[in-house]
Amino acid sequence: MKKKDKYVVGILGATGAVGNEMVEILEERSFPVEQLLVFASERSEGNSLIFQNKKATVQTVSSDSFNGIDIALFSAGAKLSQQYAPVAVKAGAVVIDNSSAFRMDPNVPLVVPEVNPDALKGHQGIIANPNCSTIQMVMALKPIHDAARIKRIVVTTFQSVSGTGKEAMDELLNQTRALLGFSEMTSTVYPYQIAFNCLPHIDEFIEGGYTKEELKMVNETHKILSDSSIGISATTVRVPVFRGHSESINLELDHPLSANEVRALLSSFPGIIVWDDIKKNVYPFPVQASGKDEVFVGRVREDPSVPNGINLWVVSDNLRKGAALNAIQIAEHLIHPPSPC
Amino acid sequence: MKKKDKYVVGILGATGAVGNEMVEILEERSFPVEQLLVFASERSEGNSLIFQNKKATVQTVSSDSFNGIDIALFSAGAKLSQQYAPVAVKAGAVVIDNSSAFRMDPNVPLVVPEVNPDALKGHQGIIANPNCSTIQMVMALKPIHDAARIKRIVVTTFQSVSGTGKEAMDELLNQTRALLGFSEMTSTVYPYQIAFNCLPHIDEFIEGGYTKEELKMVNETHKILSDSSIGISATTVRVPVFRGHSESINLELDHPLSANEVRALLSSFPGIIVWDDIKKNVYPFPVQASGKDEVFVGRVREDPSVPNGINLWVVSDNLRKGAALNAIQIAEHLIHPPSPC
Repeated sequence: MKKKDKYVVGILGATGAVGNEMVEILEERSFPVEQLLVFASERSEGNSLIFQNKKATVQTVSSDSFNGIDIALFSAGAKLSQQYAPVAVKAGAVVIDNSSAFRMDPNVPLVVPEVNPDALKGHQGIIANPNCSTIQMVMALKPIHDAARIKRIVVTTFQSVSGTGKEAMDELLNQTRALLGFSEMTSTVYPYQIAFNCLPHIDEFIEGGYTKEELKMVNETHKILSDSSIGISATTVRVPVFRGHSESINLELDHPLSANEVRALLSSFPGIIVWDDIKKNVYPFPVQASGKDEVFVGRVREDPSVPNGINLWVVSDNLRKGAALNAIQIAEHLIHPPSPC
Repeated sequence: MKKKDKYVVGILGATGAVGNEMVEILEERSFPVEQLLVFASERSEGNSLIFQNKKATVQTVSSDSFNGIDIALFSAGAKLSQQYAPVAVKAGAVVIDNSSAFRMDPNVPLVVPEVNPDALKGHQGIIANPNCSTIQMVMALKPIHDAARIKRIVVTTFQSVSGTGKEAMDELLNQTRALLGFSEMTSTVYPYQIAFNCLPHIDEFIEGGYTKEELKMVNETHKILSDSSIGISATTVRVPVFRGHSESINLELDHPLSANEVRALLSSFPGIIVWDDIKKNVYPFPVQASGKDEVFVGRVREDPSVPNGINLWVVSDNLRKGAALNAIQIAEHLIHPPSPC
């Protein structure tokens, strides 16, 4: 990417839950923005948001939107990404795409900057941001995998409604209000009530009984860790939490690591905070991780039910590290690649 | 147990969440009750409840409470069970104890009637009711274990607050109201907020970083299935659900079973209903299982990450099959042992 002092940044899907977070994080991290252009589908046209004390008005995205843009952050779903990412690249932008559209494309790097920054080299204009539940898992896996190769992962997720978007957050709020007030409750975003409930169903069902979300955790983890020999079994579940995904992860390693060794490996990895002191009831949970940038790990336990077994509990804000923050960290790597040691 | 037309039944802990359910279930199932006596600790004295259209007044439990009682259902915590179960047995009662006090005692049968009814033979007066999360799991495991021995289980639970008791149900309700109304929220039952949150902490922490709840799932499963060779790893998590526990269970079997074979085995097992038709979004969840007697299983999937792997999602009402119903089913077996084939 051509080095500049400041960059013209475009956000497609700026009015969504992740888009909003992108705008905030660009400002928080003092990303060198020359100008911010914000786009969305027609129904959000005319909305506005504030960036660096200036009003930015949401424009309807079109084929002409990307002229002059250096970095385009996409978070408006796979369909719009498929339509506009090639257009944006042709117009000279680098696209960092938060949708699933290009993640498994062999020509598109799928990147978590702390985990596989080298994958960014030689990109062809589009860089994919992984799925939220995958990002926080591979963050915790990477230092362990480097130390004692992971043979198998059994993961069960507890995913918050913000992973679905703003409408799902409203649905949880409205259903909760209705149930407490004994008024009529409706479900439109999810097939069944999510308030005070758990639904073992995220994204569409596919062959073999798995969901697309579960398959993403398998395929994206293989791609990011460049190791498709890892056996991975995922069960993804929606829970009535607004922000923050939690994951119960069981690992089978190639050779033994003690719980203390795992904690030490995790603690020294950038972007991870170990909260694990059971004597003081210290463990991570979504309400605590909400709004924070790090991936939090606790409940580290040796698992004697299998040779070299380890259990982890991993929590992170799905809108930040799971989406918007990771995308902007990718942009930061593009404009300031870390100098070689 | 001496056969009678009707039995004098005592309930210790009758005002708790499980005790309430016991009273309802005795009536629902037309258990042959001659007289119902209800006991609790001092703070509930004088409360009353209705059984078969008659008022039963809660008495403070004492050493004299159990004279003349045939069947004593205990659900008032391990401390009161330890104190009064031997007293009740001495007075001639059979005690069915819902606490953890005697579960691992080698002289006490730990029984799920559909799974190990033979363990009831030769009891010495006390019969233990297993932990709620264990009961629903072993129900789903038993037909599979009989068909293709289970080598290893990795289970993660999503446990409702009613597992803690009435006060916890009030805490979830009050915290939810406070958070929606922006008023002050307090946590007294749980160490942290449970509303819109997930806490990876059920019962006390013990050595090795596990909780007592996690250890119960290991030890009680071994005892009920009479097979301590099964490797079991459990992570137990509290979720903001009022009633109904859910479990994500990964199994490694001795030889292969297809998902269809597993569904068929489960469907023909008494007390289990398979809800598993992903094309129609059919899978079990706690709101749907609440108030029902069965254990519901869905999301049956072959897991290619390990030889002979199977994933299951198991949901049941923790106050009914997970506690009160199972206890009363034990009592039914005592008074009407199934005739040999």
